[in-house]
Amino acid sequence: VTAAFIGLDWGTTSLRAYLADVDGHVLESRQASDGILSSVGRFEETFAAHVADWSASLPVIASGMIGSRQGWVEAPYCPCPAGLDEIAGSLVFHLTQSGRRIAFVPGLSCNDEVGVPDVIRGEETQVLGDVDQGSRLYVLPGTHSKWLRTEDGQITRFATFMSGEIFAALKNHTILGRLMSGDTDDDAAFAVGVRRAHAAPEMLLHTLFGTRTLGLFGSLAPTALASYLSGLVIGTEIAAARRHFGATRMVTILASPVLTKRYADALLLCDLPARAGLEDAAIRGLARIARVAGLVR
Amino acid sequence: VTAAFIGLDWGTTSLRAYLADVDGHVLESRQASDGILSSVGRFEETFAAHVADWSASLPVIASGMIGSRQGWVEAPYCPCPAGLDEIAGSLVFHLTQSGRRIAFVPGLSCNDEVGVPDVIRGEETQVLGDVDQGSRLYVLPGTHSKWLRTEDGQITRFATFMSGEIFAALKNHTILGRLMSGDTDDDAAFAVGVRRAHAAPEMLLHTLFGTRTLGLFGSLAPTALASYLSGLVIGTEIAAARRHFGATRMVTILASPVLTKRYADALLLCDLPARAGLEDAAIRGLARIARVAGLVR
Repeated sequence: VTAAFIGLDWGTTSLRAYLADVDGHVLESRQASDGILSSVGRFEETFAAHVADWSASLPVIASGMIGSRQGWVEAPYCPCPAGLDEIAGSLVFHLTQSGRRIAFVPGLSCNDEVGVPDVIRGEETQVLGDVDQGSRLYVLPGTHSKWLRTEDGQITRFATFMSGEIFAALKNHTILGRLMSGDTDDDAAFAVGVRRAHAAPEMLLHTLFGTRTLGLFGSLAPTALASYLSGLVIGTEIAAARRHFGATRMVTILASPVLTKRYADALLLCDLPARAGLEDAAIRGLARIARVAGLVR
Repeated sequence: VTAAFIGLDWGTTSLRAYLADVDGHVLESRQASDGILSSVGRFEETFAAHVADWSASLPVIASGMIGSRQGWVEAPYCPCPAGLDEIAGSLVFHLTQSGRRIAFVPGLSCNDEVGVPDVIRGEETQVLGDVDQGSRLYVLPGTHSKWLRTEDGQITRFATFMSGEIFAALKNHTILGRLMSGDTDDDAAFAVGVRRAHAAPEMLLHTLFGTRTLGLFGSLAPTALASYLSGLVIGTEIAAARRHFGATRMVTILASPVLTKRYADALLLCDLPARAGLEDAAIRGLARIARVAGLVR
C-alpha cells in the first residue's frame, strides 16, 4: 500500500490528519484537539506540526470548518443538489508560506421551502465517503444533527437539528437540570422519552416540562432524568426528520460508536431500521473527491 | 367601599398584597420583589411588614408558590377538573406566631393522556377571577406559559409550555445568541418567526437554526434576531396548544400589558382571535374563593 495523499478532517474542536492510499485506506492517522477555535492565527504551524514526518510532496485535501470564514481559507458553500463532480469542481486551493498546495472542500447550502438557508461543512465529505446508488437517508448526530437525503450519490437536500446543543442548554441552564444527578445512561428512561416525544413532536415545549414533574412526583429517579430529557429531544428530532424527509426505510448513521448506538436505539424505538455507516467515511470521502479532482490517481 | 379581606399573590420572585372589598375591588395594593426565593425562612416577617397598617382583624388568603413545598405552608395540589367549590374546599389554614389565620390556595395537577403530570400554582386563581360560563381557553404567558381549558367555570385541563425559559436559555447559552445585538423589539422579524414556526411546529429543533443562518447570510439584521427567535418559540407554542386544546375560538390572555400585546399579535398572526382578560384577575379570584369558603361575606 502506497501513500497517495494527506487528508485533513478539521473541525471546530478537533483535527484528524490521515496518511492514506488512493482509495482512502489509512496508513497512519493522528487526532488532536487543535480545532479551528484553538488554532486561529496559526493554522499553518498546526498543520505543519501534525504532518511533519509525512512526505512533503503528497497532495493535501481538507474538509470541515477549516474551510469556513472562521477557518484558514474560505471555500464558499456549494448549492444543493451536489455530488462528487460539483464538490470536486468547487475546491479552493491555497499555497502555504512553505510552498505546499492545499485543497479545501466547500460546505453545502440549501434553502428550505420558505427560503430559509441551511448549511453543512464536513458532513458532505463523510456522506460522499459512504454513499452508493439509490435513495439514501443519513443522520450525523451531534451538537447539531445533520440529516441528508441522497439520490444516486447526489446530496439533494439536508436539514440541521440543534439537538445536542439544545439538550446541553436545557440541562445546564434551565430548571430541568435542578433535580438531576449522576451521569450514567438510563436506557429505560431514554426509551420512555423517545416514545413520548415521537408521538407528539410539535409538543416539545410542553413535553420537556415532564422532566421536572416526573422528578417532582417521584416517577423518575434523579439519575434517570438526564436520559429522559435526551430521549425527548432525540425522539422529537427523529419524528420531525422522518416527516420532513418522508423516511420509511433504512437510515444510515455516521457517528462515533457511542452516538451511533444511541441513535440506532432511538430509531428502532420509532420503528425505523438503522445501520452504521463506514467508520472511516471522512477519509474515504476525501479520497473520492481528490480522485475526481485529479489530485490523486 | 369597605375592606373585607387581604389577598396575597405571592410567587417565586414577587409579592403583591391587596386590601380589597368583598368583590375583590382593590382599596390599596403593594408590590415588592420579596418573592419566596428571597423570603425563605422569614415569610411571617415579610408578610407582617407589608400589611402592618391594614386591619389585623381581616381574613387573609394567599395564592401562588407561597403555598408550595418551597413556600410558607404547603397546600397540596388539587386534581383537575376543579372549580371554585373544589379549590375553596381544599384551602390549607395556617396560624401565624402572632395569631393570624391565613388561608393558602392549592395549586392544581392534571395528568395528560400518557400519565405525565402537570402542575400550576397561582394561575388557577387568576383564571377563576376572570372566568364565566361556557367553554373558554386561557393562556398565561411567561417563563412557563400555562394554557387552561375551562367548562362552565371548571378548570378541566391545562398544559405548561416552557417558552420563556427556553427562549432565554437559547439566547444566552447557545450559538443563536452570538450574532444578536440590541434589545429593541422588531415586530416584522417576530411575525416572520411566528408564521414560520406555526406552519411546522414539530420542526422547532430545525427552525431554530434559521436564526443563525438568516443572520450569517445577512437576511436578518443582528437587531432582528432576538425577535425572530422569540417568534419561533411563541409560534411553536401556539400551534401546539391549539392542536392540543382544539382551539378554534377566542383565546383569553392573562398577563402584563406588554406580554398581552405580544401574545395577542402572535395569536392574530395564527388566525386565532384573542382578548385581554381582567387585569385584576388575581384579586378577583381570591375574592371569589374567599366568598365560597365563607371567609368573607
